[in-house]
Amino acid sequence: MTDINAPIGVFDSGVGGLTVAKEIMHQIPNERIVYFGDTARVPYGNKSKETITKFSRQIVRFLQTQKVKAIVAACNTASAFALDEIEREVDIPMIGVVKPGVKAALKATRNGKIGVIGTEGTIASRIYPQYIKEMNPDANITGKACPLFVPLVEEGLWRDPVTDEIARRYLAELIDIDIDTLVLGCTHYPLIRETIGKVMGKGVVLVNPAYETARELKELLRRRGLLREQEAKLGDDMYQFYVSDSSEKFKQFANSIIKYGILSAKTINIEKYERSVEITGWRKKY
Amino acid sequence: MTDINAPIGVFDSGVGGLTVAKEIMHQIPNERIVYFGDTARVPYGNKSKETITKFSRQIVRFLQTQKVKAIVAACNTASAFALDEIEREVDIPMIGVVKPGVKAALKATRNGKIGVIGTEGTIASRIYPQYIKEMNPDANITGKACPLFVPLVEEGLWRDPVTDEIARRYLAELIDIDIDTLVLGCTHYPLIRETIGKVMGKGVVLVNPAYETARELKELLRRRGLLREQEAKLGDDMYQFYVSDSSEKFKQFANSIIKYGILSAKTINIEKYERSVEITGWRKKY
Repeated sequence: MTDINAPIGVFDSGVGGLTVAKEIMHQIPNERIVYFGDTARVPYGNKSKETITKFSRQIVRFLQTQKVKAIVAACNTASAFALDEIEREVDIPMIGVVKPGVKAALKATRNGKIGVIGTEGTIASRIYPQYIKEMNPDANITGKACPLFVPLVEEGLWRDPVTDEIARRYLAELIDIDIDTLVLGCTHYPLIRETIGKVMGKGVVLVNPAYETARELKELLRRRGLLREQEAKLGDDMYQFYVSDSSEKFKQFANSIIKYGILSAKTINIEKYERSVEITGWRKKY
Repeated sequence: MTDINAPIGVFDSGVGGLTVAKEIMHQIPNERIVYFGDTARVPYGNKSKETITKFSRQIVRFLQTQKVKAIVAACNTASAFALDEIEREVDIPMIGVVKPGVKAALKATRNGKIGVIGTEGTIASRIYPQYIKEMNPDANITGKACPLFVPLVEEGLWRDPVTDEIARRYLAELIDIDIDTLVLGCTHYPLIRETIGKVMGKGVVLVNPAYETARELKELLRRRGLLREQEAKLGDDMYQFYVSDSSEKFKQFANSIIKYGILSAKTINIEKYERSVEITGWRKKY
């Protein structure tokens, strides 16, 4: 029996997934969260499917040692490359950010022309077009990789002529084909939402999958009878943060995204969560 | 006895170190090379000393299994954070790119005012000022981190108004203090040497540590009687390339740096080269 009071595991390549964690905190405030950011190996966006699957598998194993009741892959690249394979290996529910983003985009579009921007990996995986075609064969989707957006965000150039110029270059082809909906397919992109919106123009709806992901997680927990009713009390150990690199740096950036005081970020050795490590509750299906 | 025909180990966080490998191939063409690029965990520049030391130690252990006769840390961040500690643990000579860069800068400067640009990690380590002060207490050195240069190079914007603009911002303070010598303290930077040179102006000498590193390596091998005399013959297995992520991507970028056909890049699991792994010739000093 799964413990209803168990935490939800949320992971990302680094700090970006905190935008998803924040949305979960907002929509289901009674839920406890264990967050893992793979800051020693970030970014994921320009690495291979094999490598991202291996990293994600190690993280899922770590989260299982934390006895989580569900896992959210808050990273688009991990959702695109690794989720399908890993969810078959574990006996707790897993959700990613891609499907929720696709659903939100299909709800928002009026002319059926959807754009999606993301890392090289996410776009090359062609997972967005695949899901969209599955849900609505008439919809038309165009992907565009924007590799410089993450470094620009991390350099703090959220509102800057250089970011404007790069956005104009990346987005030109999406404007040309007259999309009316754009999925922000990387957790960093909502942070430059204003720049992207300005370039795309007012007629284009920007979809942030974080909101829809938290909504879908809530729905999933409710359906399985796993939604925590108990209200969070002062002194509860609600949120725990783990990282693979130094926790100091993580806390700095994290605090610019989440206002909750991230006091307890701990560094762990993620590489040791290998296939050979014995993990309670781990179900071998492969 | 070290085998004079053994290869030289060269490592980097990814592809950038190939600029150093290329210089070694050019200056000591009889030497065999085993190159490792940590493409699964790249970049190193924004990660902590602890993480970079751990990664570098794994790589050094891997290179030792390849029976190398010397090791070159071709990455500035690894040279800055990890070299001092790791060279005490191994019984083969190791050199980095920082000391050679410092020597070249001290030779080049006329007014004693030297600038160094690099990753956040390299600049924060303050290793360049430390070495320069040791070699010439009168010299004046100013460091500046340029985190966007690597993503801009990797996006191919080697000659581009955006790179010009970012370079003007990063370098402004170095121009203001009237340096006459600038160390390109990251292996990617020589690829935008033209942009950096244009912004700094003709009076400023740009120092690429790769040249001096290869020269110093040659000198070191000669001193220890390890310089390979035997001329490379057609069919010799001269250069081997290993990476931690997919080798396909590596080969693409690598071939834009080195014209030698990189046919044999292999992916290895670098994480398994842990302290507990038994390695022949490994001398425990700690």
